[in-house]
Amino acid sequence: MAESERYRRGREKLEEIHGEHGREVVQALEDVAPELARYIFEFAFGDIYRREGLHLRDRQIATIAALTAQGNAQPQLKAHIRGGLNVGLTRSEIMEVIVQMAVYAGFPAAMNGAAAAREAFREADAGTEG
Amino acid sequence: MAESERYRRGREKLEEIHGEHGREVVQALEDVAPELARYIFEFAFGDIYRREGLHLRDRQIATIAALTAQGNAQPQLKAHIRGGLNVGLTRSEIMEVIVQMAVYAGFPAAMNGAAAAREAFREADAGTEG
Amino acid sequence: MAESERYRRGREKLEEIHGEHGREVVQALEDVAPELARYIFEFAFGDIYRREGLHLRDRQIATIAALTAQGNAQPQLKAHIRGGLNVGLTRSEIMEVIVQMAVYAGFPAAMNGAAAAREAFREADAGTEG
Amino acid sequence: MAESERYRRGREKLEEIHGEHGREVVQALEDVAPELARYIFEFAFGDIYRREGLHLRDRQIATIAALTAQGNAQPQLKAHIRGGLNVGLTRSEIMEVIVQMAVYAGFPAAMNGAAAAREAFREADAGTEG
Amino acid sequence: MAESERYRRGREKLEEIHGEHGREVVQALEDVAPELARYIFEFAFGDIYRREGLHLRDRQIATIAALTAQGNAQPQLKAHIRGGLNVGLTRSEIMEVIVQMAVYAGFPAAMNGAAAAREAFREADAGTEG
Amino acid sequence: MAESERYRRGREKLEEIHGEHGREVVQALEDVAPELARYIFEFAFGDIYRREGLHLRDRQIATIAALTAQGNAQPQLKAHIRGGLNVGLTRSEIMEVIVQMAVYAGFPAAMNGAAAAREAFREADAGTEG
Repeated sequence: MAESERYRRGREKLEEIHGEHGREVVQALEDVAPELARYIFEFAFGDIYRREGLHLRDRQIATIAALTAQGNAQPQLKAHIRGGLNVGLTRSEIMEVIVQMAVYAGFPAAMNGAAAAREAFREADAGTEG
Repeated sequence: MAESERYRRGREKLEEIHGEHGREVVQALEDVAPELARYIFEFAFGDIYRREGLHLRDRQIATIAALTAQGNAQPQLKAHIRGGLNVGLTRSEIMEVIVQMAVYAGFPAAMNGAAAAREAFREADAGTEG
Repeated sequence: MAESERYRRGREKLEEIHGEHGREVVQALEDVAPELARYIFEFAFGDIYRREGLHLRDRQIATIAALTAQGNAQPQLKAHIRGGLNVGLTRSEIMEVIVQMAVYAGFPAAMNGAAAAREAFREADAGTEG
Repeated sequence: MAESERYRRGREKLEEIHGEHGREVVQALEDVAPELARYIFEFAFGDIYRREGLHLRDRQIATIAALTAQGNAQPQLKAHIRGGLNVGLTRSEIMEVIVQMAVYAGFPAAMNGAAAAREAFREADAGTEG
Repeated sequence: MAESERYRRGREKLEEIHGEHGREVVQALEDVAPELARYIFEFAFGDIYRREGLHLRDRQIATIAALTAQGNAQPQLKAHIRGGLNVGLTRSEIMEVIVQMAVYAGFPAAMNGAAAAREAFREADAGTEG
Repeated sequence: MAESERYRRGREKLEEIHGEHGREVVQALEDVAPELARYIFEFAFGDIYRREGLHLRDRQIATIAALTAQGNAQPQLKAHIRGGLNVGLTRSEIMEVIVQMAVYAGFPAAMNGAAAAREAFREADAGTEG
């Protein structure tokens, strides 16, 4: 069935970026919002992140930039910083993206993005799943 | 004098990304907000964009993503799409970044980003300075 | 093929809400962002708006409220005000939603939402497709 | 005096939606911002929510949608989810509104809205005032 | 009647800040959203702007800063820049507020704020009501 | 060297507004984002806040207004409320600015701004550095 194929492939793509822990975070949504969890697998990761034409590394730059600029989704920003490390961005490149956001969204957004990065890097050092 | 050095180098960096027309747009600010124009040259381009550690191509991905997600700075988004083309992004890569923003900022933001891209691409085809 | 089934049903749902003109607006995206147009049919209308559990009238209240509060997607707001009329909201109910947004997003957002409603109502009076 | 009439009626309307606990939350503002508390009673609830022409249930749909999309007022979102239950929305309808916001404000906003709903539902189960 | 007293005094306060033209702009809302126009007179100007404890000049600094930072209400920003001139801010002070917003909301917001100021200043020079 | 002059003067200006504790907060960024800390000293405080043409008191009104309206940078808002007290704003004037934001960004933003002010005032009473 095509639907479940999108789900399965999206879950694989999510695990490729965010690891097993990332999958668990989305599945934890399933008790309160099962369809939202499903659409994250099917649409966000199954449709969008599986698209060809842009490397995962570049996609993570885009997402880290957007979430830093928006400034109201710290858990997701932290997860995508971990994801960026997983697909080949260096810590220094991630910080460059965040610092650059001072130009487009102001210094408080960049400062709070840097705080999210600090936490994400610490968790990576501690070997915590992320 | 160090100040004017930052200004001069920032202006060069801005021209590298946005072309001569980009410089003119910033200088057109000088009658109403001369210091704002100066800080764009000195800080945004002289300090941030001249930083090592992230390619200009990656910086344009970050900026296009953020401006699409914020959705309230269409002229700047259009300018940075042109800038993205100038530093090596393909049209198709730019559209991937914009489409991905549907996941983080919703479909209206992505639709309005796509409209900005259409205009920017048309101006590029017409050879209009951008 | 299941994919094209989602597309077809999403397009039908979009036409139920926005009329033939709404479909044309999305299809006009296809030259610059064909996948974005596809996801609007498949995901936004094929997955989300076709869900049971909330009437289309209630869905339009939610969308008009959100777009008024965000304040940076006037074309989409206007389209959804027309869509609200199409699925049973009265003009007076739509204005109540918009006025209420003064409490959650401030008066400028509500004023600009009211301006979008005025235009949408005029187009409805003129029989313009919307 | 007409002023105190607006205050009294607004407080009644707020209690109708948010219960006694909701009134206490607003009154807790009175030590630091007494006028803000007064305007919440008089204007937000006394003027806006007491308006005819839209059912309270519909007003809560609009507010839940807007606060989910804005994504920067979690305490108020949680309170209005409780308020939505109080005036007749089902849990499932509330989740539909929140999931729909993925289309207009992106998945992180919808995920954080779902987290607010989970907490609000748990507090409702525990009989905690809300 | 107390209600109409708030309305009358609010309209006077609005005219003190925005001139006769400002009142006309709000009254132009009355065909589509009469209650919104009424709340602007009664609440925004009758309650808030008539409060003691902060000079009108300081209130205009706050409003110009907020609208520049939000970046999605250009007509209201332009009107409040004109209002700022009317209550004693100099053009140079207004530009300082706008340039400062580059720090808190990014350069595109400040650039678009400067563009609004340029238009507002030109209209003031031309003697256009504002 | 001119660069370090901007840094030194910016750090002095930051201490004038935020006290020694404020400087420490920015320097705490230096382990994860040293350049961001540097730009806060050099650009935000060395360039912008040291500009003539607007009193520090007025600059703090602008910043408190903007951060309250944006609603996604509570730590920075709290710091700038303390800074406002340090450069001559009264608590009552600060609350006026925050309450006024209900008009431009809605009541939840104003409520959360008032909560930040309550915390900032308590810390000031306790003599905690801020």
